[in-house]
Amino acid sequence: MKLSTEIEIRFSDLDAYGHVNNAIFFTYLETARVKLFRERFSALMQEGLLFLVVEASCRYRKPIELDDRVLIDISTEEIGRSSFTFTYLVHDGRGKEFADARTVMVCFDQGRSKAVAIPDDFRAVFDGQVEC
Amino acid sequence: MKLSTEIEIRFSDLDAYGHVNNAIFFTYLETARVKLFRERFSALMQEGLLFLVVEASCRYRKPIELDDRVLIDISTEEIGRSSFTFTYLVHDGRGKEFADARTVMVCFDQGRSKAVAIPDDFRAVFDGQVEC
Amino acid sequence: MKLSTEIEIRFSDLDAYGHVNNAIFFTYLETARVKLFRERFSALMQEGLLFLVVEASCRYRKPIELDDRVLIDISTEEIGRSSFTFTYLVHDGRGKEFADARTVMVCFDQGRSKAVAIPDDFRAVFDGQVEC
Amino acid sequence: MKLSTEIEIRFSDLDAYGHVNNAIFFTYLETARVKLFRERFSALMQEGLLFLVVEASCRYRKPIELDDRVLIDISTEEIGRSSFTFTYLVHDGRGKEFADARTVMVCFDQGRSKAVAIPDDFRAVFDGQVEC
Repeated sequence: MKLSTEIEIRFSDLDAYGHVNNAIFFTYLETARVKLFRERFSALMQEGLLFLVVEASCRYRKPIELDDRVLIDISTEEIGRSSFTFTYLVHDGRGKEFADARTVMVCFDQGRSKAVAIPDDFRAVFDGQVEC
Repeated sequence: MKLSTEIEIRFSDLDAYGHVNNAIFFTYLETARVKLFRERFSALMQEGLLFLVVEASCRYRKPIELDDRVLIDISTEEIGRSSFTFTYLVHDGRGKEFADARTVMVCFDQGRSKAVAIPDDFRAVFDGQVEC
Repeated sequence: MKLSTEIEIRFSDLDAYGHVNNAIFFTYLETARVKLFRERFSALMQEGLLFLVVEASCRYRKPIELDDRVLIDISTEEIGRSSFTFTYLVHDGRGKEFADARTVMVCFDQGRSKAVAIPDDFRAVFDGQVEC
Repeated sequence: MKLSTEIEIRFSDLDAYGHVNNAIFFTYLETARVKLFRERFSALMQEGLLFLVVEASCRYRKPIELDDRVLIDISTEEIGRSSFTFTYLVHDGRGKEFADARTVMVCFDQGRSKAVAIPDDFRAVFDGQVEC
């Protein structure tokens, strides 16, 4: 699976160094991820399935400035029974790479408040292709 | 009622101008307010009563820098049947005033999802004195 | 002057009530404002002119949810010698109004670190029409 | 080196799930880190030395709720010529561990805008003990 989405930078994302704050990169990943989930898996959400982040990491390569265009490509790296791994490339669409990142998520059933197997239709999207 | 509480500044509260971002002032007000509510009105919260902000305003006098100490004094300006007004002074405890602000709030019953009369014990605290 | 711009809601803008946090409304205003300034007044910015918020207020009418589309209309209410007032309407473009707001700003010269007269070309844009 | 500092949770740190948002954990790490730097290395800061985060990762073990007390222990894991690694334990001081994290930082000279060797007095603090 591969999805590419654009993030709108806010002035308040910049810190006193004049660059997007390092914690905000994870907000950008979440924004891209939630957009994907809502577009593709809104049904699951309604069934009370959550995807909890159990691990997150980011390598910062270049600072993001207010003028930069920011795109995030999400790919599936690994799909287990109840957990899966997303990898992210944060770039400007013109060859400048700001960061690459990774989140491990677990499919969680709110009702039973426990990790559950990833539904097949979810798995199908991951194994296939998503386009925006 | 008057309450004074200290706010911990975070580096990420600063924007590219090197001062606490203007929107963050409202986060500071909320932080002070929630602290008050949780200390004094936790019972109400458990009954499903919320205090929704219906109006908020702030006059910025001096920028807040990372080194500044920030205190917020909350006072009750007005108490109606279901709504009340808080006024805030944001200062450093040594005579420097960063801002004064005001929020109008409504007592809201989540269960019935409607505005309700302010409970008497809540009103009592407002009319009396709160100390921290 | 009137400008309308769209704001991209982020999951992290929502608070524990499941609605966009009240302080974030001011971040939305700033995001719309900065977009306007950068599009129209980038030259001024480069001359070291800032527009500092000295007053901000918002009336909350309807909560914003993750699914909502958010548009912000900015209008000039008043232009003085060195200060000016913007009014904002936060709505969904389909008649639902989330909030109206107001910010008073001052034209500030970083180099001389003092309030200065609003440049004529800036004033011209305000008196005229801006389209997006 | 080991430092322990407390973080003040804000209502706005919680997301729609009612827990501290996963990106905010990195804001907490930064808040603890900046506090350490300002207490110990303010002189360096004034010389225009920055510590840029080039890598950050976090493993989430337990959600943080508004009522939780949050402490962050920072330890030095590794010190190179111009880069160093901090490890963090986010816990409640009573045995509940919310997360453990890691950041790789580079000592950066703003004036020459390049990575530089870690100053000896900085290195000394790292090799020694810091107490709060």
